[in-house]
Amino acid sequence: MTDFHGIIPPLLTPRTAHGEIDRAGLAALVDHLVAGGVHGIFVLGSSGEVPYLTNAERDLVLSSAIEAAAGRVPVLVGVSEQTTTRVLDEADRLLAIGGDAVVVTTPFYALSDAAEVERHLRAIAAHVSVPVFAYDVPVRTHMKMPLDVLVRLAEEGVIAGVKDSSGDDVGFRRLLLATKHLENFAVFTGHEVVTDGAMLGGAAGIVPGLGNVDPAGYVRIYDAAKAGDWQAAAAEQDRVAALFDITGAATPGRVSAGAAGLGGFKTALQLMGVIGSNRMAEPMEALNAEEAERVREIVAAAGLL
Amino acid sequence: MTDFHGIIPPLLTPRTAHGEIDRAGLAALVDHLVAGGVHGIFVLGSSGEVPYLTNAERDLVLSSAIEAAAGRVPVLVGVSEQTTTRVLDEADRLLAIGGDAVVVTTPFYALSDAAEVERHLRAIAAHVSVPVFAYDVPVRTHMKMPLDVLVRLAEEGVIAGVKDSSGDDVGFRRLLLATKHLENFAVFTGHEVVTDGAMLGGAAGIVPGLGNVDPAGYVRIYDAAKAGDWQAAAAEQDRVAALFDITGAATPGRVSAGAAGLGGFKTALQLMGVIGSNRMAEPMEALNAEEAERVREIVAAAGLL
Amino acid sequence: MTDFHGIIPPLLTPRTAHGEIDRAGLAALVDHLVAGGVHGIFVLGSSGEVPYLTNAERDLVLSSAIEAAAGRVPVLVGVSEQTTTRVLDEADRLLAIGGDAVVVTTPFYALSDAAEVERHLRAIAAHVSVPVFAYDVPVRTHMKMPLDVLVRLAEEGVIAGVKDSSGDDVGFRRLLLATKHLENFAVFTGHEVVTDGAMLGGAAGIVPGLGNVDPAGYVRIYDAAKAGDWQAAAAEQDRVAALFDITGAATPGRVSAGAAGLGGFKTALQLMGVIGSNRMAEPMEALNAEEAERVREIVAAAGLL
Amino acid sequence: MTDFHGIIPPLLTPRTAHGEIDRAGLAALVDHLVAGGVHGIFVLGSSGEVPYLTNAERDLVLSSAIEAAAGRVPVLVGVSEQTTTRVLDEADRLLAIGGDAVVVTTPFYALSDAAEVERHLRAIAAHVSVPVFAYDVPVRTHMKMPLDVLVRLAEEGVIAGVKDSSGDDVGFRRLLLATKHLENFAVFTGHEVVTDGAMLGGAAGIVPGLGNVDPAGYVRIYDAAKAGDWQAAAAEQDRVAALFDITGAATPGRVSAGAAGLGGFKTALQLMGVIGSNRMAEPMEALNAEEAERVREIVAAAGLL
Repeated sequence: MTDFHGIIPPLLTPRTAHGEIDRAGLAALVDHLVAGGVHGIFVLGSSGEVPYLTNAERDLVLSSAIEAAAGRVPVLVGVSEQTTTRVLDEADRLLAIGGDAVVVTTPFYALSDAAEVERHLRAIAAHVSVPVFAYDVPVRTHMKMPLDVLVRLAEEGVIAGVKDSSGDDVGFRRLLLATKHLENFAVFTGHEVVTDGAMLGGAAGIVPGLGNVDPAGYVRIYDAAKAGDWQAAAAEQDRVAALFDITGAATPGRVSAGAAGLGGFKTALQLMGVIGSNRMAEPMEALNAEEAERVREIVAAAGLL
Repeated sequence: MTDFHGIIPPLLTPRTAHGEIDRAGLAALVDHLVAGGVHGIFVLGSSGEVPYLTNAERDLVLSSAIEAAAGRVPVLVGVSEQTTTRVLDEADRLLAIGGDAVVVTTPFYALSDAAEVERHLRAIAAHVSVPVFAYDVPVRTHMKMPLDVLVRLAEEGVIAGVKDSSGDDVGFRRLLLATKHLENFAVFTGHEVVTDGAMLGGAAGIVPGLGNVDPAGYVRIYDAAKAGDWQAAAAEQDRVAALFDITGAATPGRVSAGAAGLGGFKTALQLMGVIGSNRMAEPMEALNAEEAERVREIVAAAGLL
Repeated sequence: MTDFHGIIPPLLTPRTAHGEIDRAGLAALVDHLVAGGVHGIFVLGSSGEVPYLTNAERDLVLSSAIEAAAGRVPVLVGVSEQTTTRVLDEADRLLAIGGDAVVVTTPFYALSDAAEVERHLRAIAAHVSVPVFAYDVPVRTHMKMPLDVLVRLAEEGVIAGVKDSSGDDVGFRRLLLATKHLENFAVFTGHEVVTDGAMLGGAAGIVPGLGNVDPAGYVRIYDAAKAGDWQAAAAEQDRVAALFDITGAATPGRVSAGAAGLGGFKTALQLMGVIGSNRMAEPMEALNAEEAERVREIVAAAGLL
Repeated sequence: MTDFHGIIPPLLTPRTAHGEIDRAGLAALVDHLVAGGVHGIFVLGSSGEVPYLTNAERDLVLSSAIEAAAGRVPVLVGVSEQTTTRVLDEADRLLAIGGDAVVVTTPFYALSDAAEVERHLRAIAAHVSVPVFAYDVPVRTHMKMPLDVLVRLAEEGVIAGVKDSSGDDVGFRRLLLATKHLENFAVFTGHEVVTDGAMLGGAAGIVPGLGNVDPAGYVRIYDAAKAGDWQAAAAEQDRVAALFDITGAATPGRVSAGAAGLGGFKTALQLMGVIGSNRMAEPMEALNAEEAERVREIVAAAGLL
């Protein structure tokens, strides 16, 4: 069984200036990540614009990413559907293409409770043949994964880990504490600017959207943390946190929160020459020239140009 | 062009005791509604458990409903997908089966803003060949449809109407006021217990989940309102509002909010002999015997047994 | 015991251009309301800027209002404090000045539950010698008053009524239904634009902030409703709802939501010559000249200039 | 000017079994904290049940705390009122008794925006003669303090620091980064279980409610962090985090969230012999015997009995 740890960026989905999935850009981005030393890639997550992709596009993105990764790092696959039976269908279709693990959220659009979340995760784990990671992202699902459910499923080996993007640092630490005794359970933080503290608390790794832009920076944080050099980890985190300001480069109110964050990442990668366009999925708008100039200043200040 | 008005219940999706879609039960339910005098049916809405249906099940439900309706009433089709391109795919697949209008929400799981909602609805309307109704259901999408967007799209004829399940009675009245001058624009309330006031304010009709159970009751409210007999409308609304207590028959905390509400409807219909089972879609649990007994008392008190 | 019903506007607190409480303006406003035919006034509510008033100012406002009302209409007194013991102190101080009833919210700033809200209301009712109205305003307290608590306290005579500003029209109707059999229990709506529906559902009256500007309009709605002329009530509601747009006259983003709403009311009254200044309590900003011009157009269109 | 740093627990307010403020218990608690090595105490915060205290009780608590502290540690004073002018009155009354700094929230019950929060804090700082700390506690005020406002007020020296109980770890880190260059600005975390990460990010100290129970534990975390021994800090944090489970000892649903958390602290201190009763302020209920037994097990496991 694959060991999941370290830096596993949620892969962006580059598009051409005409709006199609940019397979060449995607391959270049995967190379950029592998060159930066990442330990895996997470395909079809929120950073990959998964809610905006048709099924055909999801298939294309996954096959392209697996081809680009070429076995150099494991590929985790986001399975983003509204409820259990739809997740099973989606997982079947995607895993037929490939992937080393699935990453699944709570039901969304539905009005669920803790018991339904537990049955949901159990049903998925019983159905698929790869490890299941629970993806806790209430800003999108509007439901926090209950701590006791996660701990129970961890202890029974139903789930292999958690990607926590909940913004609830207290719950994150309690999850770490409650699963510290489980050797094969991995808790990842999805928050870009508090990763040193997450590692200090015992996280197995980091799933940073910003890691698309600066994979090597996150690898340095991870390596420093594993070496016990916490001061170095914190210093590098501070540097990378300044870079995170690219998510605030959009003129306030001009584009949506989704478009501002991912648009900042895509624009930085375009400026760095990794991808060819900062085009976003419909109906999101790309950052404009004025906003791109702000991104450029921040990226330059971080020494990435 | 079809005129949309009156009572248009969001069709429940009956299941057999084994969990499959119950086509016979669905046909019986459609007959029950038509016999009650409804003016249309809304298939694949939240009450139809749409987030829990696989694509194959959605297709089956729609084709079964159209067959059962047999042209007696128009069929509105819910298109429940995360963002624009996925809605287009879903609409293409479903409208190939049939349907007289589509009903679409804001994007969900995404982090949108007003401009994206507007582009979303415009793109859908440009793509499909049937009228588009905007479905405002922030309890599920976690985004209220902006009033100014709805009014602009109404004035331009992009959308044919709104199904408002927002729980924002002030916004509902302002939408009614702002669109009163538009002859072919129809605003429906999705809230079961304040329909007399909604009609008094100028609503075109009602999309009541509870209308699955008591279609004739809602038709009486509508007819009284159209006849200007508001006292009769209010009295009938009070009677039907008491029936709405079946949504609170589940033991507190035993099942999710989604399962409690729809479970109450299904259980009532089972007790009334319309459908054969109160089975819910996974991962929701059905009401148990004790809870069904509470439903029976309420349904009996309403004179429906 | 006083009978509470009809139109009971929550009295604004006029200030001079220098920011002091304007006693003359307050007296003029009370005269304006009484001339409009209102059935009571509610002093020290949210519309009265009560969270912004020092205790000395609260005392001054109450004594001024009672003096101005001069027994022509009953005076309900808002008691706006964080929790039970502070409410008791506040009620003692204010009722020593006068008042025919107190209006109290759930605790706020506290993290309460239903049982604490019930004990809170019971303690207050046991302490004061005037009727207690529960003021349900979750937009400010961030806690919805539980329906079962309100019904139980109504049935036991602990509370004399409810002022519902919850924006939950379904809960409002269910409260009306559950208390319809109680002769001396009065449910008021606090929402300005859905009052015809509220009356149709059985409300005892309306507590409209906008009633400061157009008391006669609300009295016409009430009288039409009591006479069973619902079409007239709805038509008048539509007219007054258009006037409510003064709460949206502020340039988006320039002032807070609180300042925009109350600022619209104050500016309208200044333009109508009832009060001398649209000055707001600190730290709220008053509407500026450009915004006042928008208010003027709306007020003129409503025929109030 | 006093230097504010280190462990500054928000002092609980002990009550006698009859419900009065327990001055002896309060003095014993202050001694317990000072003996534990704390660097200050924060009186009249949320943990001190400040929303539940009458003004007379607030005065008594503050004077008792200052007397008990006897100059051994600085005393920070919570000024908990709805808006600006009320805060000024409250600050005047309390600072006449004493205190080395005030700690103030955003307005609450009001509907404010960023500009009003800024004017609010500026007005308070201009009025009082002691340093002002901004207290960011949106779980109670329902308004997050805007980052840019805090940074601007920090740079201008208007505020001396921030107590962050926002639960927004990303915002916390960005505040630390943005104010790192300000020598006399102190950012404290109010969250008990992620203090090692907060210190690693550059926090000046910790304001832990749980520090009432185990002040020495938090002092050990702080000392390890200052010595650069992060592994020791994390290990001690893990130990103390397990103790935090006393806030979950109440039977689910029996008491409010407020009563459960503070009730756990009070019960632990009663079991440890520091205070005589776990009585809570009205309308909160104290933990019962069964719940106290659960607290005892956790406290014993932490080695504090």
